[in-house]
Amino acid sequence: MNLIIDVGNSFVKLAVFKGKKLKYKEKVKLDDALVNIKALKKKYNAIEKTIISSVGKLKKTDVKAIAKFFDVLVLDSKTKLPFKNLYKTPETLGVDRIALVCSAVNQFPHKNTLIIDAGTCITYDFVTSDNEYLGGAISPGLRMRYKSLNNLTANLPLLESEIPNDIIGNSTDESIHSGVVNGILKEIDGVIDTYKLKYSDLTVILTGGDAKFLSKQLKSSIFANSNFLLEGLNYILQFNTNE
Amino acid sequence: MNLIIDVGNSFVKLAVFKGKKLKYKEKVKLDDALVNIKALKKKYNAIEKTIISSVGKLKKTDVKAIAKFFDVLVLDSKTKLPFKNLYKTPETLGVDRIALVCSAVNQFPHKNTLIIDAGTCITYDFVTSDNEYLGGAISPGLRMRYKSLNNLTANLPLLESEIPNDIIGNSTDESIHSGVVNGILKEIDGVIDTYKLKYSDLTVILTGGDAKFLSKQLKSSIFANSNFLLEGLNYILQFNTNE
Repeated sequence: MNLIIDVGNSFVKLAVFKGKKLKYKEKVKLDDALVNIKALKKKYNAIEKTIISSVGKLKKTDVKAIAKFFDVLVLDSKTKLPFKNLYKTPETLGVDRIALVCSAVNQFPHKNTLIIDAGTCITYDFVTSDNEYLGGAISPGLRMRYKSLNNLTANLPLLESEIPNDIIGNSTDESIHSGVVNGILKEIDGVIDTYKLKYSDLTVILTGGDAKFLSKQLKSSIFANSNFLLEGLNYILQFNTNE
Repeated sequence: MNLIIDVGNSFVKLAVFKGKKLKYKEKVKLDDALVNIKALKKKYNAIEKTIISSVGKLKKTDVKAIAKFFDVLVLDSKTKLPFKNLYKTPETLGVDRIALVCSAVNQFPHKNTLIIDAGTCITYDFVTSDNEYLGGAISPGLRMRYKSLNNLTANLPLLESEIPNDIIGNSTDESIHSGVVNGILKEIDGVIDTYKLKYSDLTVILTGGDAKFLSKQLKSSIFANSNFLLEGLNYILQFNTNE
Protein backbone atom coordinates (compact mmCIF):
# COMPACT_ATOMS: atom_id res chain seq x y z
CA MET A 1 0.00 0.00 0.00
CA ASN A 2 1.03 3.58 -0.69
CA LEU A 3 0.45 6.70 1.35
CA ILE A 4 0.07 9.98 -0.54
CA ILE A 5 0.90 13.20 1.31
CA ASP A 6 -0.16 16.29 -0.62
CA VAL A 7 0.84 19.42 1.29
CA GLY A 8 -1.00 22.60 0.28
CA ASN A 9 -0.73 26.12 1.64
CA SER A 10 -2.91 25.51 4.69
CA PHE A 11 -4.19 21.94 4.40
CA VAL A 12 -2.69 18.51 3.82
CA LYS A 13 -4.45 15.79 1.87
CA LEU A 14 -3.65 12.24 2.93
CA ALA A 15 -4.65 9.29 0.77
CA VAL A 16 -4.10 5.54 0.95
CA PHE A 17 -3.85 3.52 -2.28
CA LYS A 18 -3.80 -0.24 -2.71
CA GLY A 19 -2.24 -0.64 -6.16
CA LYS A 20 -4.18 1.79 -8.36
CA LYS A 21 -7.17 1.88 -6.08
CA LEU A 22 -7.91 4.73 -3.67
CA LYS A 23 -8.93 3.17 -0.36
CA TYR A 24 -9.14 6.22 1.87
CA LYS A 25 -8.57 9.97 1.85
CA GLU A 26 -8.79 12.82 4.31
CA LYS A 27 -7.96 16.52 4.48
CA VAL A 28 -6.27 17.77 7.66
CA LYS A 29 -4.75 20.99 8.94
CA LEU A 30 -1.03 21.45 8.31
CA ASP A 31 -0.26 21.33 12.05
CA ASP A 32 -2.19 18.09 12.50
CA ALA A 33 -0.56 16.24 9.58
CA LEU A 34 1.99 14.23 11.56
CA VAL A 35 -0.53 13.01 14.14
CA ASN A 36 -2.88 11.89 11.39
CA ILE A 37 -0.10 10.17 9.45
CA LYS A 38 0.80 8.18 12.57
CA ALA A 39 -2.87 7.21 12.96
CA LEU A 40 -2.99 6.05 9.32
CA LYS A 41 0.11 3.92 9.86
CA LYS A 42 -1.74 2.11 12.65
CA LYS A 43 -4.96 1.74 10.66
CA TYR A 44 -3.27 0.56 7.44
CA ASN A 45 -0.20 -1.38 8.51
CA ALA A 46 0.36 -2.56 4.91
CA ILE A 47 1.55 0.95 3.95
CA GLU A 48 5.22 0.69 2.99
CA LYS A 49 5.90 3.66 0.76
CA THR A 50 4.91 7.29 0.67
CA ILE A 51 5.26 10.20 -1.70
CA ILE A 52 5.33 13.77 -0.39
CA SER A 53 4.25 16.58 -2.69
CA SER A 54 4.52 20.00 -1.10
CA VAL A 55 3.69 23.41 -2.52
CA GLY A 56 3.39 24.67 1.05
CA LYS A 57 5.70 24.40 3.99
CA LEU A 58 6.20 20.96 5.44
CA LYS A 59 8.98 21.10 8.05
CA LYS A 60 12.16 19.10 7.41
CA THR A 61 11.74 17.56 10.84
CA ASP A 62 8.31 16.31 9.75
CA VAL A 63 9.81 14.70 6.63
CA LYS A 64 12.41 13.00 8.83
CA ALA A 65 9.70 11.78 11.21
CA ILE A 66 7.71 10.36 8.29
CA ALA A 67 10.85 8.67 6.91
CA LYS A 68 11.03 6.64 10.14
CA PHE A 69 7.75 4.93 9.25
CA PHE A 70 7.91 4.58 5.46
CA ASP A 71 10.16 4.66 2.40
CA VAL A 72 9.78 8.32 1.37
CA LEU A 73 9.89 9.84 -2.10
CA VAL A 74 9.86 13.65 -1.99
CA LEU A 75 8.57 14.91 -5.34
CA ASP A 76 10.72 17.65 -6.84
CA SER A 77 12.00 18.85 -10.21
CA LYS A 78 14.59 16.03 -10.28
CA THR A 79 12.18 13.15 -9.77
CA LYS A 80 12.04 10.67 -12.68
CA LEU A 81 8.83 11.34 -14.61
CA PRO A 82 6.83 9.35 -17.18
CA PHE A 83 6.73 12.19 -19.72
CA LYS A 84 9.12 14.48 -21.59
CA ASN A 85 9.19 17.86 -19.86
CA LEU A 86 9.62 20.72 -22.36
CA TYR A 87 8.96 23.41 -19.75
CA LYS A 88 11.75 25.99 -19.93
CA THR A 89 11.90 26.48 -16.17
CA PRO A 90 11.35 22.94 -14.80
CA GLU A 91 12.74 24.02 -11.42
CA THR A 92 9.77 26.39 -10.97
CA LEU A 93 7.15 23.96 -12.24
CA GLY A 94 4.85 23.31 -9.27
CA VAL A 95 4.88 19.72 -8.03
CA ASP A 96 1.07 19.77 -8.13
CA ARG A 97 1.21 20.48 -11.86
CA ILE A 98 3.78 17.65 -12.33
CA ALA A 99 1.44 15.23 -10.56
CA LEU A 100 -1.52 16.24 -12.75
CA VAL A 101 0.47 15.64 -15.93
CA CYS A 102 1.56 12.22 -14.65
CA SER A 103 -2.05 11.35 -13.96
CA ALA A 104 -2.97 12.37 -17.52
CA VAL A 105 -0.25 10.31 -19.24
CA ASN A 106 -1.21 7.34 -17.07
CA GLN A 107 -4.97 7.51 -17.56
CA PHE A 108 -5.08 8.99 -21.09
CA PRO A 109 -1.90 7.71 -22.78
CA HIS A 110 -1.14 9.07 -26.27
CA LYS A 111 -3.92 11.66 -26.10
CA ASN A 112 -3.67 15.44 -26.39
CA THR A 113 -4.81 16.26 -22.87
CA LEU A 114 -5.55 19.55 -21.13
CA ILE A 115 -5.76 19.32 -17.34
CA ILE A 116 -7.56 22.14 -15.55
CA ASP A 117 -7.14 22.25 -11.78
CA ALA A 118 -9.57 24.68 -10.14
CA GLY A 119 -8.08 25.21 -6.71
CA THR A 120 -6.38 28.16 -4.99
CA CYS A 121 -5.18 28.99 -8.50
CA ILE A 122 -6.63 27.69 -11.74
CA THR A 123 -3.82 25.84 -13.51
CA TYR A 124 -3.93 24.70 -17.11
CA ASP A 125 -1.48 22.00 -18.21
CA PHE A 126 -1.14 20.49 -21.65
CA VAL A 127 0.50 17.22 -22.64
CA THR A 128 0.59 16.06 -26.27
CA SER A 129 -0.19 12.65 -27.73
CA ASP A 130 3.61 12.33 -28.10
CA ASN A 131 3.92 12.38 -24.30
CA GLU A 132 5.47 15.86 -24.30
CA TYR A 133 4.51 18.37 -21.64
CA LEU A 134 4.42 21.87 -23.18
CA GLY A 135 3.25 24.03 -20.27
CA GLY A 136 0.01 25.90 -19.71
CA ALA A 137 -1.27 28.77 -17.63
CA ILE A 138 -1.96 29.95 -14.08
CA SER A 139 -4.83 32.27 -13.22
CA PRO A 140 -6.49 33.26 -9.93
CA GLY A 141 -8.86 30.66 -8.46
CA LEU A 142 -12.49 31.11 -7.40
CA ARG A 143 -11.90 32.12 -3.76
CA MET A 144 -8.84 34.16 -4.74
CA ARG A 145 -11.00 36.29 -7.05
CA TYR A 146 -13.61 36.93 -4.36
CA LYS A 147 -10.86 37.73 -1.85
CA SER A 148 -8.94 40.07 -4.15
CA LEU A 149 -12.07 42.12 -4.94
CA ASN A 150 -12.48 42.67 -1.21
CA ASN A 151 -8.78 43.02 -0.26
CA LEU A 152 -7.71 45.32 -3.06
CA THR A 153 -10.64 47.76 -3.22
CA ALA A 154 -12.10 50.20 -0.70
CA ASN A 155 -15.76 49.24 -0.88
CA LEU A 156 -16.47 45.73 -2.15
CA PRO A 157 -17.66 43.04 0.30
CA LEU A 158 -16.20 39.54 0.73
CA LEU A 159 -18.83 37.05 -0.44
CA GLU A 160 -19.23 33.30 -0.28
CA SER A 161 -19.07 31.61 -3.71
CA GLU A 162 -22.45 31.37 -5.40
CA ILE A 163 -23.66 30.46 -8.90
CA PRO A 164 -25.01 33.76 -10.31
CA ASN A 165 -28.62 33.95 -11.47
CA ASP A 166 -27.75 35.72 -14.71
CA ILE A 167 -24.93 37.28 -16.69
CA ILE A 168 -26.42 40.66 -15.64
CA GLY A 169 -26.06 41.09 -11.89
CA ASN A 170 -28.76 43.49 -10.65
CA SER A 171 -27.15 44.20 -7.27
CA THR A 172 -23.59 44.61 -6.08
CA ASP A 173 -23.53 41.04 -4.68
CA GLU A 174 -24.98 39.59 -7.90
CA SER A 175 -22.53 41.70 -9.95
CA ILE A 176 -19.62 40.18 -8.03
CA HIS A 177 -20.98 36.62 -8.40
CA SER A 178 -21.43 37.18 -12.13
CA GLY A 179 -17.99 38.73 -12.53
CA VAL A 180 -16.18 36.02 -10.62
CA VAL A 181 -18.11 32.87 -11.54
CA ASN A 182 -19.18 33.73 -15.09
CA GLY A 183 -15.71 35.19 -15.62
CA ILE A 184 -14.10 31.87 -14.70
CA LEU A 185 -16.57 29.89 -16.82
CA LYS A 186 -15.96 32.13 -19.87
CA GLU A 187 -12.21 31.86 -19.27
CA ILE A 188 -12.24 28.06 -19.05
CA ASP A 189 -14.58 27.59 -22.03
CA GLY A 190 -12.57 30.12 -24.05
CA VAL A 191 -9.24 28.48 -23.25
CA ILE A 192 -10.61 25.03 -24.16
CA ASP A 193 -11.95 26.41 -27.47
CA THR A 194 -8.53 27.89 -28.29
CA TYR A 195 -6.76 24.57 -27.65
CA LYS A 196 -9.38 22.79 -29.77
CA LEU A 197 -8.59 25.00 -32.76
CA LYS A 198 -5.16 23.36 -32.80
CA TYR A 199 -5.95 19.98 -31.21
CA SER A 200 -9.44 18.97 -32.34
CA ASP A 201 -9.22 15.60 -30.53
CA LEU A 202 -8.51 17.30 -27.19
CA THR A 203 -9.30 15.47 -23.94
CA VAL A 204 -10.10 17.83 -21.05
CA ILE A 205 -9.91 16.93 -17.36
CA LEU A 206 -11.34 19.23 -14.70
CA THR A 207 -10.17 18.63 -11.15
CA GLY A 208 -9.50 20.53 -7.93
CA GLY A 209 -11.64 21.74 -5.05
CA ASP A 210 -13.92 23.86 -7.23
CA ALA A 211 -14.35 21.32 -10.06
CA LYS A 212 -17.76 20.17 -8.83
CA PHE A 213 -19.01 23.76 -8.38
CA LEU A 214 -17.93 24.74 -11.90
CA SER A 215 -18.33 21.59 -14.01
CA LYS A 216 -22.11 21.69 -14.52
CA GLN A 217 -21.97 25.31 -15.67
CA LEU A 218 -19.37 24.80 -18.41
CA LYS A 219 -20.46 24.47 -22.00
CA SER A 220 -17.39 22.39 -22.96
CA SER A 221 -17.50 18.65 -22.38
CA ILE A 222 -14.96 17.63 -19.78
CA PHE A 223 -14.11 14.73 -17.49
CA ALA A 224 -14.50 15.79 -13.87
CA ASN A 225 -12.30 13.82 -11.46
CA SER A 226 -11.67 15.14 -7.98
CA ASN A 227 -8.94 12.55 -7.25
CA PHE A 228 -6.85 13.22 -10.35
CA LEU A 229 -3.91 14.76 -8.50
CA LEU A 230 -3.81 12.04 -5.82
CA GLU A 231 -3.93 9.38 -8.53
CA GLY A 232 -1.04 11.13 -10.30
CA LEU A 233 1.06 11.14 -7.14
CA ASN A 234 0.36 7.45 -6.61
CA TYR A 235 1.43 6.78 -10.20
CA ILE A 236 4.70 8.71 -9.74
CA LEU A 237 5.42 6.60 -6.66
CA GLN A 238 4.67 3.39 -8.58
CA PHE A 239 6.72 4.62 -11.55
CA ASN A 240 9.75 5.34 -9.36
CA THR A 241 9.63 2.12 -7.41
CA ASN A 242 8.92 -0.16 -10.41
CA GLU A 243 5.77 -1.40 -8.78
CA MET B 1 -16.17 75.50 -18.20
CA ASN B 2 -16.49 72.44 -15.98
CA LEU B 3 -13.92 70.78 -13.76
CA ILE B 4 -14.21 67.01 -13.29
CA ILE B 5 -12.71 65.51 -10.15
CA ASP B 6 -12.60 61.72 -10.25
CA VAL B 7 -11.18 60.35 -7.01
CA GLY B 8 -9.87 56.79 -7.15
CA ASN B 9 -8.29 54.64 -4.47
CA SER B 10 -4.84 56.23 -4.75
CA PHE B 11 -5.02 58.72 -7.62
CA VAL B 12 -7.25 61.60 -8.64
CA LYS B 13 -8.07 62.41 -12.24
CA LEU B 14 -8.72 66.07 -12.97
CA ALA B 15 -10.25 67.16 -16.27
CA VAL B 16 -11.39 70.47 -17.72
CA PHE B 17 -14.30 70.52 -20.21
CA LYS B 18 -15.52 73.41 -22.33
CA GLY B 19 -19.06 72.33 -23.19
CA LYS B 20 -18.71 68.75 -24.40
CA LYS B 21 -15.05 69.14 -25.28
CA LEU B 22 -12.21 67.84 -23.11
CA LYS B 23 -9.59 70.61 -22.95
CA TYR B 24 -7.17 69.21 -20.40
CA LYS B 25 -6.67 66.22 -18.11
CA GLU B 26 -4.14 65.10 -15.54
CA LYS B 27 -3.70 62.34 -12.99
CA VAL B 28 -2.35 63.34 -9.58
CA LYS B 29 -1.74 61.71 -6.23
CA LEU B 30 -4.59 61.89 -3.72
CA ASP B 31 -2.55 64.09 -1.37
CA ASP B 32 -1.70 66.55 -4.16
CA ALA B 33 -5.26 66.95 -5.43
CA LEU B 34 -6.13 70.22 -3.70
CA VAL B 35 -2.91 71.97 -4.77
CA ASN B 36 -3.48 70.92 -8.38
CA ILE B 37 -7.13 71.98 -8.30
CA LYS B 38 -6.05 75.45 -7.13
CA ALA B 39 -3.53 75.58 -9.97
CA LEU B 40 -6.25 74.64 -12.49
CA LYS B 41 -8.49 77.40 -11.16
CA LYS B 42 -5.73 79.90 -11.96
CA LYS B 43 -5.01 78.40 -15.39
CA TYR B 44 -8.67 78.10 -16.45
CA ASN B 45 -10.48 80.97 -14.76
CA ALA B 46 -13.64 80.23 -16.79
CA ILE B 47 -14.26 77.13 -14.65
CA GLU B 48 -17.48 77.69 -12.72
CA LYS B 49 -18.76 74.27 -11.84
CA THR B 50 -17.28 71.00 -10.71
CA ILE B 51 -18.48 67.46 -10.15
CA ILE B 52 -16.77 65.21 -7.62
CA SER B 53 -16.96 61.45 -8.08
CA SER B 54 -15.21 59.52 -5.35
CA VAL B 55 -14.81 55.77 -4.90
CA GLY B 56 -11.81 56.51 -2.69
CA LYS B 57 -11.41 58.80 0.27
CA LEU B 58 -11.56 62.50 -0.40
CA LYS B 59 -11.62 64.39 2.93
CA LYS B 60 -14.70 66.45 3.79
CA THR B 61 -12.41 69.40 4.42
CA ASP B 62 -11.14 69.04 0.85
CA VAL B 63 -14.70 69.11 -0.50
CA LYS B 64 -15.36 72.26 1.54
CA ALA B 65 -12.18 73.87 0.22
CA ILE B 66 -13.19 73.05 -3.36
CA ALA B 67 -16.67 74.50 -2.73
CA LYS B 68 -15.05 77.87 -2.01
CA PHE B 69 -13.83 78.04 -5.62
CA PHE B 70 -16.65 76.42 -7.61
CA ASP B 71 -20.28 75.28 -7.53
CA VAL B 72 -19.86 71.66 -6.44
CA LEU B 73 -21.99 68.63 -7.33
CA VAL B 74 -20.97 65.55 -5.35
CA LEU B 75 -22.13 62.49 -7.28
CA ASP B 76 -23.97 59.94 -5.14
CA SER B 77 -26.90 57.52 -5.34
CA LYS B 78 -29.39 60.41 -5.00
CA THR B 79 -28.06 62.51 -7.89
CA LYS B 80 -30.59 63.02 -10.72
CA LEU B 81 -29.59 60.73 -13.59
CA PRO B 82 -30.49 60.59 -17.29
CA PHE B 83 -31.50 56.92 -17.20
CA LYS B 84 -33.88 54.63 -15.31
CA ASN B 85 -31.94 52.75 -12.66
CA LEU B 86 -33.28 49.22 -12.17
CA TYR B 87 -30.38 48.16 -9.93
CA LYS B 88 -31.79 46.60 -6.76
CA THR B 89 -29.16 48.15 -4.52
CA PRO B 90 -28.67 51.67 -5.99
CA GLU B 91 -27.00 52.83 -2.77
CA THR B 92 -24.12 50.39 -3.42
CA LEU B 93 -23.80 51.12 -7.13
CA GLY B 94 -20.33 52.64 -7.56
CA VAL B 95 -20.34 56.25 -8.74
CA ASP B 96 -17.82 55.27 -11.42
CA ARG B 97 -20.34 52.81 -12.85
CA ILE B 98 -23.08 55.50 -12.73
CA ALA B 99 -20.83 57.85 -14.71
CA LEU B 100 -20.11 55.21 -17.36
CA VAL B 101 -23.81 54.53 -17.89
CA CYS B 102 -24.47 58.28 -18.22
CA SER B 103 -21.75 58.50 -20.83
CA ALA B 104 -23.36 55.63 -22.75
CA VAL B 105 -26.89 57.08 -22.77
CA ASN B 106 -25.45 60.42 -23.86
CA GLN B 107 -23.18 59.14 -26.64
CA PHE B 108 -25.20 56.08 -27.75
CA PRO B 109 -28.83 57.03 -27.06
CA HIS B 110 -31.46 54.30 -27.60
CA LYS B 111 -28.83 51.60 -28.13
CA ASN B 112 -28.32 48.39 -26.16
CA THR B 113 -24.91 49.24 -24.76
CA LEU B 114 -22.42 47.23 -22.70
CA ILE B 115 -19.70 49.32 -21.07
CA ILE B 116 -16.57 47.48 -19.96
CA ASP B 117 -14.21 49.42 -17.70
CA ALA B 118 -10.84 47.66 -17.35
CA GLY B 119 -9.33 49.33 -14.30
CA THR B 120 -8.60 48.16 -10.74
CA CYS B 121 -11.66 45.97 -11.26
CA ILE B 122 -13.24 45.06 -14.57
CA THR B 123 -16.81 46.35 -14.44
CA TYR B 124 -19.51 45.41 -16.93
CA ASP B 125 -22.57 47.66 -17.16
CA PHE B 126 -25.53 47.23 -19.42
CA VAL B 127 -28.13 49.80 -20.45
CA THR B 128 -30.98 48.92 -22.81
CA SER B 129 -32.28 50.82 -25.84
CA ASP B 130 -35.19 51.82 -23.56
CA ASN B 131 -32.74 53.76 -21.38
CA GLU B 132 -32.97 51.25 -18.53
CA TYR B 133 -29.88 50.32 -16.57
CA LEU B 134 -30.07 46.61 -15.62
CA GLY B 135 -26.73 46.05 -13.86
CA GLY B 136 -23.71 44.01 -14.89
CA ALA B 137 -20.71 42.41 -13.26
CA ILE B 138 -17.50 43.10 -11.34
CA SER B 139 -14.41 40.93 -11.73
CA PRO B 140 -10.75 41.40 -10.72
CA GLY B 141 -8.74 43.74 -12.96
CA LEU B 142 -5.44 43.05 -14.71
CA ARG B 143 -3.07 44.22 -11.94
CA MET B 144 -5.34 42.76 -9.27
CA ARG B 145 -4.97 39.31 -10.86
CA TYR B 146 -1.19 39.53 -10.99
CA LYS B 147 -1.11 40.81 -7.39
CA SER B 148 -3.46 38.15 -6.04
CA LEU B 149 -1.40 35.31 -7.57
CA ASN B 150 1.60 36.66 -5.68
CA ASN B 151 -0.16 37.74 -2.45
CA LEU B 152 -2.30 34.65 -1.95
CA THR B 153 0.16 31.86 -2.85
CA ALA B 154 3.47 30.79 -1.32
CA ASN B 155 5.61 30.63 -4.46
CA LEU B 156 4.36 32.71 -7.38
CA PRO B 157 6.24 35.89 -8.35
CA LEU B 158 4.74 39.36 -8.89
CA LEU B 159 5.12 40.20 -12.58
CA GLU B 160 4.60 43.30 -14.69
CA SER B 161 1.73 42.97 -17.17
CA GLU B 162 2.77 41.51 -20.50
CA ILE B 163 0.94 40.19 -23.56
CA PRO B 164 1.66 36.43 -23.55
CA ASN B 165 3.35 34.81 -26.52
CA ASP B 166 0.93 31.90 -26.67
CA ILE B 167 -2.01 30.27 -24.91
CA ILE B 168 0.54 27.65 -23.70
CA GLY B 169 3.00 29.30 -21.33
CA ASN B 170 6.25 27.31 -21.36
CA SER B 171 7.69 28.82 -18.17
CA THR B 172 6.19 29.95 -14.89
CA ASP B 173 6.29 33.63 -15.96
CA GLU B 174 4.69 32.84 -19.32
CA SER B 175 2.10 30.62 -17.58
CA ILE B 176 1.10 33.55 -15.37
CA HIS B 177 0.93 35.98 -18.31
CA SER B 178 -1.22 33.51 -20.23
CA GLY B 179 -3.47 32.82 -17.24
CA VAL B 180 -4.01 36.47 -16.40
CA VAL B 181 -4.09 38.15 -19.82
CA ASN B 182 -5.63 35.37 -21.92
CA GLY B 183 -8.00 34.71 -19.02
CA ILE B 184 -9.24 38.32 -19.12
CA LEU B 185 -9.51 38.29 -22.92
CA LYS B 186 -11.51 35.03 -22.91
CA GLU B 187 -13.70 36.42 -20.13
CA ILE B 188 -14.43 39.69 -21.98
CA ASP B 189 -15.03 38.00 -25.34
CA GLY B 190 -17.20 35.35 -23.68
CA VAL B 191 -19.29 37.90 -21.79
CA ILE B 192 -19.80 39.97 -24.98
CA ASP B 193 -20.88 36.82 -26.88
CA THR B 194 -23.42 35.98 -24.16
CA TYR B 195 -24.96 39.48 -24.29
CA LYS B 196 -25.07 39.25 -28.09
CA LEU B 197 -27.17 36.08 -27.93
CA LYS B 198 -29.93 38.22 -26.41
CA TYR B 199 -29.06 41.65 -27.88
CA SER B 200 -27.73 41.07 -31.39
CA ASP B 201 -27.39 44.82 -32.04
CA LEU B 202 -25.15 45.31 -28.99
CA THR B 203 -22.79 48.31 -28.83
CA VAL B 204 -19.68 47.63 -26.71
CA ILE B 205 -17.46 50.30 -25.17
CA LEU B 206 -14.10 49.41 -23.66
CA THR B 207 -12.58 52.00 -21.35
CA GLY B 208 -10.32 52.25 -18.28
CA GLY B 209 -6.59 52.21 -17.71
CA ASP B 210 -6.06 48.80 -19.32
CA ALA B 211 -8.33 49.36 -22.34
CA LYS B 212 -5.45 50.14 -24.67
CA PHE B 213 -3.44 47.10 -23.50
CA LEU B 214 -6.39 44.75 -24.02
CA SER B 215 -8.33 46.18 -26.98
CA LYS B 216 -6.09 44.95 -29.80
CA GLN B 217 -6.13 41.39 -28.44
CA LEU B 218 -9.92 41.04 -28.29
CA LYS B 219 -11.76 39.20 -31.04
CA SER B 220 -14.99 41.16 -30.43
CA SER B 221 -15.40 44.53 -32.13
CA ILE B 222 -15.55 47.31 -29.56
CA PHE B 223 -15.22 51.07 -29.29
CA ALA B 224 -12.18 51.95 -27.18
CA ASN B 225 -12.47 55.33 -25.43
CA SER B 226 -10.16 56.17 -22.57
CA ASN B 227 -12.13 59.33 -21.62
CA PHE B 228 -15.53 57.68 -21.41
CA LEU B 229 -15.88 58.04 -17.64
CA LEU B 230 -14.73 61.68 -17.59
CA GLU B 231 -17.18 62.46 -20.40
CA GLY B 232 -19.94 60.79 -18.40
CA LEU B 233 -19.18 62.90 -15.34
CA ASN B 234 -19.21 66.06 -17.45
CA TYR B 235 -22.58 65.00 -18.86
CA ILE B 236 -24.04 64.44 -15.37
CA LEU B 237 -22.90 67.93 -14.39
CA GLN B 238 -24.48 69.41 -17.53
CA PHE B 239 -27.65 67.35 -16.97
CA ASN B 240 -28.00 68.58 -13.37
CA THR B 241 -27.36 72.24 -14.14
CA ASN B 242 -29.50 72.42 -17.32
CA GLU B 243 -26.55 73.57 -19.33
